Amino acid sequence: METKQFDVIVLGGGPGGYVAAIRAAQLGFKTAVIEREKIGGICVNWGCIPTKALLKNAEIYETLHHAKDWGYSFDNLKFDFKQIIKRSRDVADANSKGGDFLMKKNKIEVIKGAGKFLDKNTLSVTDASGKEIVHAKAKHIIVATGARARMLPNLKADGKRILTSTEAMIAQDVPKSIVIIGAGAIGIEFAYFFNAFGSKVTIVEMLPAILPVEDEEVSQALAKIFVKKGMQIFTETKVEKVDVGANSVKVTVSGKDGQKIIEADQCLVAIGVQGNIENIGLEKIGVTTEKGWIKVDKFYKTNVDGIYAIGDIIGPPWLAHVASHEGILCVEKMAGKDVHPMDYNSIPGCTYCQPQVASIGLTEKKAKEMGYQVKVGRFPFTASGKARAIQERDGFVKVIFDAKYGELLGAHILGSEATEMIAEFGVAKTMEATYKEIGHTIHAHPTLSEAMMEAALDAYGEAMHI
Amino acid sequence: METKQFDVIVLGGGPGGYVAAIRAAQLGFKTAVIEREKIGGICVNWGCIPTKALLKNAEIYETLHHAKDWGYSFDNLKFDFKQIIKRSRDVADANSKGGDFLMKKNKIEVIKGAGKFLDKNTLSVTDASGKEIVHAKAKHIIVATGARARMLPNLKADGKRILTSTEAMIAQDVPKSIVIIGAGAIGIEFAYFFNAFGSKVTIVEMLPAILPVEDEEVSQALAKIFVKKGMQIFTETKVEKVDVGANSVKVTVSGKDGQKIIEADQCLVAIGVQGNIENIGLEKIGVTTEKGWIKVDKFYKTNVDGIYAIGDIIGPPWLAHVASHEGILCVEKMAGKDVHPMDYNSIPGCTYCQPQVASIGLTEKKAKEMGYQVKVGRFPFTASGKARAIQERDGFVKVIFDAKYGELLGAHILGSEATEMIAEFGVAKTMEATYKEIGHTIHAHPTLSEAMMEAALDAYGEAMHI
Repeated sequence: METKQFDVIVLGGGPGGYVAAIRAAQLGFKTAVIEREKIGGICVNWGCIPTKALLKNAEIYETLHHAKDWGYSFDNLKFDFKQIIKRSRDVADANSKGGDFLMKKNKIEVIKGAGKFLDKNTLSVTDASGKEIVHAKAKHIIVATGARARMLPNLKADGKRILTSTEAMIAQDVPKSIVIIGAGAIGIEFAYFFNAFGSKVTIVEMLPAILPVEDEEVSQALAKIFVKKGMQIFTETKVEKVDVGANSVKVTVSGKDGQKIIEADQCLVAIGVQGNIENIGLEKIGVTTEKGWIKVDKFYKTNVDGIYAIGDIIGPPWLAHVASHEGILCVEKMAGKDVHPMDYNSIPGCTYCQPQVASIGLTEKKAKEMGYQVKVGRFPFTASGKARAIQERDGFVKVIFDAKYGELLGAHILGSEATEMIAEFGVAKTMEATYKEIGHTIHAHPTLSEAMMEAALDAYGEAMHI
Repeated sequence: METKQFDVIVLGGGPGGYVAAIRAAQLGFKTAVIEREKIGGICVNWGCIPTKALLKNAEIYETLHHAKDWGYSFDNLKFDFKQIIKRSRDVADANSKGGDFLMKKNKIEVIKGAGKFLDKNTLSVTDASGKEIVHAKAKHIIVATGARARMLPNLKADGKRILTSTEAMIAQDVPKSIVIIGAGAIGIEFAYFFNAFGSKVTIVEMLPAILPVEDEEVSQALAKIFVKKGMQIFTETKVEKVDVGANSVKVTVSGKDGQKIIEADQCLVAIGVQGNIENIGLEKIGVTTEKGWIKVDKFYKTNVDGIYAIGDIIGPPWLAHVASHEGILCVEKMAGKDVHPMDYNSIPGCTYCQPQVASIGLTEKKAKEMGYQVKVGRFPFTASGKARAIQERDGFVKVIFDAKYGELLGAHILGSEATEMIAEFGVAKTMEATYKEIGHTIHAHPTLSEAMMEAALDAYGEAMHI
């Protein structure tokens, strides 16, 4: 068997792995990525990117339905669902090719296949047919194999009645009705998507609110908007069983109002992910896992010297941007750079339905639970001139400051450009900005972003426009 | 004549004046605003707000023309221009009513009429018929009378052949062709607007580039995009004369290629503004003006004790958000608060065409002229996954750092959400963030905002995705 020697090998070419590889190459390491499918991983090929293409499509379709308000008219509006799916796939492919280009440009060797540890410095790589093609050796090996959708027991995604996000992303047609199990970001995004194209959508969530990690006010406001769009939402509701029939699925749920059966064309399961820890030889080299995730220290070293892990495989939050930054940090530390551990309280989280949801830091509830005295400010987009001008009045900005020092603890946005607006609060958190610094920064008028300044000022009774 | 006594009177209810009044009321001053038209001034009624409504309309119309790319089809697309204008007027009216509400809520007396100084503590107010209705007295009087469109000599806006932005905003119909004189933000926004609805647009600019205050790379890239959209642009071109005919205007211009005559249905003059310093009695109380603008110190005091001036009337930059912050600062200083002078290098400027333009701080050229050694970073939206997903690949982010300390000197964005994205750089400038702090702040994936992080990293050779 041919043996190839590298300084750094990254096992898995997703947003954690390929970014780690780029940083490693930049820092002078001879680097390889082992990837069995496509560069970009789930994120680029089956996650973040293609879903955002679909969601933008849904947003435009909603605008078409309100064309009259804008002074536009037309007849025979139709959508070509195959073209919508195709556009999303094309976007994913273009992004993956962009990844290939970056690998080449940075002189990173991409080994196509599945890697498995033979010893702590050696991975055996087999191709799709199961044939071993190479032994890849390195002093530093980063495990970035990611995660896959969790399934309900005894259920299998068949792409026909039962879907995970993967099957939903390449749906042949819009289901007349769909039950979505799990109201995290993925469930909520697909609920928005299918609803926009006319599906009867029912959302089932075990916890008391949709988007349960978000601030309660945001979850509640979004739930109201979704209900107004025609969706049904059952929270604090457990799925008892799913019966797959020839022409429909029957989902038996139990909640506050007892048991009921929801019948629909399809059922999308979006109840979270599980780590890809199997079949890569972790047990052979003695890497410690816990509850299905690899255990690492604050610079992503596992218990085995020279073996690191980043991204979804080390557990929540399962976010592409977290994986990428973990990759960068892991490699910079490896290179002896003076780096600081990541602040897991300063990670933005986004949901790309409309209105969008974005947040960073603590919710009000969490801040109080942690013993903070808080100052809370809010600003509704109904009071924003820009929101009125572009007819996007839903939502608000909510900010939470530590009453003692005025430091920003958390920020929560529900609104049409929330996912871009949250970036300001990201830098504000990095810089430990106080209400004064956010509130007294001149924001361009008219922008939605003014709402962030106003919310900060509102926490101290100084807002102008409410 | 009835005399009313206040602590603070603001002459002019635009974004400078009404915000100053709110802050004054918050700080316990008995406050009045004298306004001859509507609360909100030009910004709310004839500027920022109604134009943004029109521009969003144009953006949606452009999307309708590309519906097929998104998988949508329809027949007989039509626009109702009167409805488009009406929506814009409705938005302006709603915003102005919002202003009325804020005045009431803050117990600010609104005196409807034109104010004129009798002495440094007294304004005489006359109503629309010219009848004097009240004498308003205060210890502190803030002049915030704003500015109006400048005209070419011997030309008058008739709303038919010759327009300023005011007449353009309530156009009865889309002109078949229009010459736009002046390629600042207002000229460029209307060029975009009329082009979107099918006008043949010709832009004439005396300076070497459109949006001459922006970074050259941004101006050049936008010019290319505008030309691709079918507009004609003449830079370094002077208007010699404008002949108004019964059915057209003939604009004689001279530039690099000699003299030529451009004939069009209409001509929009957008060559800047001049201050409303007349007929308010400034000379009577001896307030110093210079080149048509009121002279003030860094806390907006004029040479006359107790008289202040804020907003457009004190000269460039003529921006609503600048006026508002000047108002807040002026009043806070008046109230004895510990305030710092405004940093005029940290003011965002926006142009709401598509792609949008937004910037803050120094251009590369200006930074070099000032003697800085610079580090420049760029990131094109063609390399952004989000930009691909939402089909908005035009433009880029450009950032300029001081090579010595890594401090952010300027940031320039051309792109679909530039006007919201610039807010992050605003806080970054307030906090004196360096490339490291921007580049190492975790930005949500996938967002356009990642381009800001990448551009910052690019300045130091650490970008990931180019």
